[in-house]
Amino acid sequence: MNEAVAGEGIYAQGLDRVAANHAPLTPISFLSRAAAVYPDKTAVVHGERRITYRGFHERACRLASALQRRGIGVGDCVAIMAANIPAMLEAHNGVPMAGAVLNAINTRLDAATVAFILEHGGAKILLADQEFAATIEAALGRLASPPLVVGIADAELQGPPPPGDIEYEDLLAEGDPGFRCSQPEDEWQGICLLYTSGTTGNPKGVVYHHRGAYLNAIGNAITFGLGRRSAYLWTLPMFHCSGWTYTWGVTAVSATHVCLRRVEPARVFKLIAEEGVSHMCGAPIVLNMLANAPAADKVAFPQTVDIMTGGAAPPSAVIEAMEQGGFRVIHAYGLTETYGPATACAWQSAWDDLDLRGRAAYMARQGVRYLTLEGSKVADGETGAELPWDGETIGELMLRGNTVMKGYLKNPEATGESLRDGWFRSGDLAVRHPDGYIEVKDRSKDIIISGGENISSLEIEEVLYRHPKVLEAAVVAKPDEKWGESPCAFVTLHDGLEATAEEIIGFCRDNMAHFKQPRSVVFGPLPKTSTGKIQKFVLRERARAL
Amino acid sequence: MNEAVAGEGIYAQGLDRVAANHAPLTPISFLSRAAAVYPDKTAVVHGERRITYRGFHERACRLASALQRRGIGVGDCVAIMAANIPAMLEAHNGVPMAGAVLNAINTRLDAATVAFILEHGGAKILLADQEFAATIEAALGRLASPPLVVGIADAELQGPPPPGDIEYEDLLAEGDPGFRCSQPEDEWQGICLLYTSGTTGNPKGVVYHHRGAYLNAIGNAITFGLGRRSAYLWTLPMFHCSGWTYTWGVTAVSATHVCLRRVEPARVFKLIAEEGVSHMCGAPIVLNMLANAPAADKVAFPQTVDIMTGGAAPPSAVIEAMEQGGFRVIHAYGLTETYGPATACAWQSAWDDLDLRGRAAYMARQGVRYLTLEGSKVADGETGAELPWDGETIGELMLRGNTVMKGYLKNPEATGESLRDGWFRSGDLAVRHPDGYIEVKDRSKDIIISGGENISSLEIEEVLYRHPKVLEAAVVAKPDEKWGESPCAFVTLHDGLEATAEEIIGFCRDNMAHFKQPRSVVFGPLPKTSTGKIQKFVLRERARAL
Repeated sequence: MNEAVAGEGIYAQGLDRVAANHAPLTPISFLSRAAAVYPDKTAVVHGERRITYRGFHERACRLASALQRRGIGVGDCVAIMAANIPAMLEAHNGVPMAGAVLNAINTRLDAATVAFILEHGGAKILLADQEFAATIEAALGRLASPPLVVGIADAELQGPPPPGDIEYEDLLAEGDPGFRCSQPEDEWQGICLLYTSGTTGNPKGVVYHHRGAYLNAIGNAITFGLGRRSAYLWTLPMFHCSGWTYTWGVTAVSATHVCLRRVEPARVFKLIAEEGVSHMCGAPIVLNMLANAPAADKVAFPQTVDIMTGGAAPPSAVIEAMEQGGFRVIHAYGLTETYGPATACAWQSAWDDLDLRGRAAYMARQGVRYLTLEGSKVADGETGAELPWDGETIGELMLRGNTVMKGYLKNPEATGESLRDGWFRSGDLAVRHPDGYIEVKDRSKDIIISGGENISSLEIEEVLYRHPKVLEAAVVAKPDEKWGESPCAFVTLHDGLEATAEEIIGFCRDNMAHFKQPRSVVFGPLPKTSTGKIQKFVLRERARAL
Repeated sequence: MNEAVAGEGIYAQGLDRVAANHAPLTPISFLSRAAAVYPDKTAVVHGERRITYRGFHERACRLASALQRRGIGVGDCVAIMAANIPAMLEAHNGVPMAGAVLNAINTRLDAATVAFILEHGGAKILLADQEFAATIEAALGRLASPPLVVGIADAELQGPPPPGDIEYEDLLAEGDPGFRCSQPEDEWQGICLLYTSGTTGNPKGVVYHHRGAYLNAIGNAITFGLGRRSAYLWTLPMFHCSGWTYTWGVTAVSATHVCLRRVEPARVFKLIAEEGVSHMCGAPIVLNMLANAPAADKVAFPQTVDIMTGGAAPPSAVIEAMEQGGFRVIHAYGLTETYGPATACAWQSAWDDLDLRGRAAYMARQGVRYLTLEGSKVADGETGAELPWDGETIGELMLRGNTVMKGYLKNPEATGESLRDGWFRSGDLAVRHPDGYIEVKDRSKDIIISGGENISSLEIEEVLYRHPKVLEAAVVAKPDEKWGESPCAFVTLHDGLEATAEEIIGFCRDNMAHFKQPRSVVFGPLPKTSTGKIQKFVLRERARAL
């Protein structure tokens, strides 16, 4: 740790790192500070439950202590499969406080995938929410040596009792509320393991370290404007990139976490009004759900709620509906590999006076690097050479810095491929505008090549979303004898409305270059991944079969 | 850099630091980001001058490039002696961008001390503001091998031409505005050298590193609530702990720096009104000066201005006057050794409804550790054992974490003494209240021991400041045959007012324990250090001579 910088001379002599002036960066320091400064403030709300910061800290300490007493420590993995309940927040602190790595598992996965993850990550203990008992039991049945299962009961939930060998509260009772956690030996130590919801093959295990989690949490607090008076509603799954690191970022500023088991519009609106929610996150589908909620589900609230969205650009119609409903949308971009948000569409004062269409065009862009990310570029995927900032030349979006993952667990090939030549390759295709803002045009595999022209499926979707009858839309490539590929649109209409393919295609023709218009339109519900993303690979198969 | 954490097993295999996922933390990254995201936004205001973020970045690049062309690099020191002008901000970026260490010299020092500092720090180049030409010339005359002197002219300033071998703008012209600075090889690399204004002996050179500067700048942005729309007025000298790291913190959030050559109330009020100032910092003497400014100097402004103060607790009378004048006071605490602010009196909602006296009593406390500091304790100075949180037991305030200095330059003994046993010893005596808030009672040498009782000079000063005729007050120990020591008060009255010693002592007697009341009162102006602190060691000598 004390290697001198070459040539630093007197500035490197007798000026070493010592315990007084160097400590590993770790987000678990946020909770102990919040508990010391605001012990009686409400840290976590879950239905009728209220947990103060003192209580939150004590419960995390108990969890860490109990885990250590059961032999968990550095190099071990503890998994959790749970909704956005207090135990998830406690695990994001208590597990790393014990020195271990937390593996939060996507609750929408099937038993076979859960079994694969538990085996691959080597979890020694699984914290299991009673809601997912059936999947968990089935997954455990597939394992030769299953982990110890700790069942989490929830007074808010009806249904079967929690699965497992011991109940979560009994585990906490084994622990010491005054447990003094040791800091990680090195901030590069692993803190979380998160599996990407790959569209083919087995999921890859992304490993986070303490340094990156600390920095992204702080980057989020600054970018999203979180403060002591903020109340953050958990509409984003915490298993998704550690809740985009807001699991720690909200605690960093001693704000209040408002838990939410399921994203149901009526419940969301009720909590916004009753708990004074100021901030929340979600994929565009969440915004869409709120914007299109039945009037009976909506509750008026006096504050403006900041909502950060990502995963896909929010269509202008959705932005408009959200603004009218009392929300302010900020568009961010990131991947599991970047601890969630890595860029955001930083607001420019010049946009203040634009009309909705004008603003939405800017807001659809993924924007600029977070303060805590080191660099971003749109580059040639082969050579890594940066491409012109002309808003037209499409290249691969690449990112670098301290909030890029440690790598893929037990997969040095994929890690090396992904992190080669100084940059993380996102696999997303983007342009860079002259003002430096990045706009993602598609995943590499989502671009449509028709008659030699690149067509962005996102661009067609943006037009489709503007059609008054369209609730959701997704466009993929359909094999075409003449053109190679042609755009095929899958559309869900608003309840009770009807439309013809001709009507939709005609609307597109009026609003885009003719060669881009969809050649086929299919109506019906869209298949989604467990994180709410539209499954384009399923749609591609359907388009192929048309 | 790739040492695995012992026992991390699979979480340390094939998951090394590489260029894609690890970059040294450095505050110079803030300027390049601000220039990329907000190129046309006003970054720096200085009188009639307006510098955009693009311009600020280009000028810093030119400076770095010109310095490198003149042979400056890693391990070199560049000094600057300047008021709060744009060149100071440019130097805080351009010098570390060249790999070098910036030594900002207190402009109020005498020539002999400046000469000592230039020689001790080994500056190869000195950037010299024309205002301080006389002192600089005298200092250079004392040096066997003086540095290259770059004179900084200022259109805002009347007077003699700048000193030196070359003018600052000509130096910038030598540099490349497109200079690509390399990041520091290691975030532990030195970034700044700042000499403490010691009361005895030669000043000590405190060395900062990139990591600490980055983290404290971010800690400040979060603690002070800085954002893109903020305008920060430079009432705090930038040579003071790198402007408490706001030199970088303001840039981190792309806010606007408003320069200020001298703290003159009329100019301060004018800038607050005209530039929409939202944030500023200063010692209590600055608050006092603003609160007591002649009515003719005051200009009304619509906004509330957040003002962070430190160095001594703000007396309640000053807090009251500031609040009435449109300011909101936040009390922070730190030292040169901690990059400026290390603790702050974090607000509690329960204080909202208190009357001024009640609030001021809380606000006088130095508070709790910054988010970016690792730990703080009030401990036995000998053993380091933490003392009870009872608000009464006085011990030494100790701090630890990434925002504690690298050490004292060429002074391993002082470094070792100061950073021993895992903690930085502040030399300040404090108590810790049951709620965890720290309150500094005195510098070790400022405590008065009378009849075996410890008397806090600050406590007496707080009472003196409440006397309507008192403008400033300082209390020191006076040798006393009977009691060992007794409190001696030095008092400056408001212009045109008169008072007797009996009146002052009587007021104290009515407001404190009798054994604490001052036995002597001396009227007149108070001696100040170059950073505006009252020089208690001078007063102690005077008291001894009474």
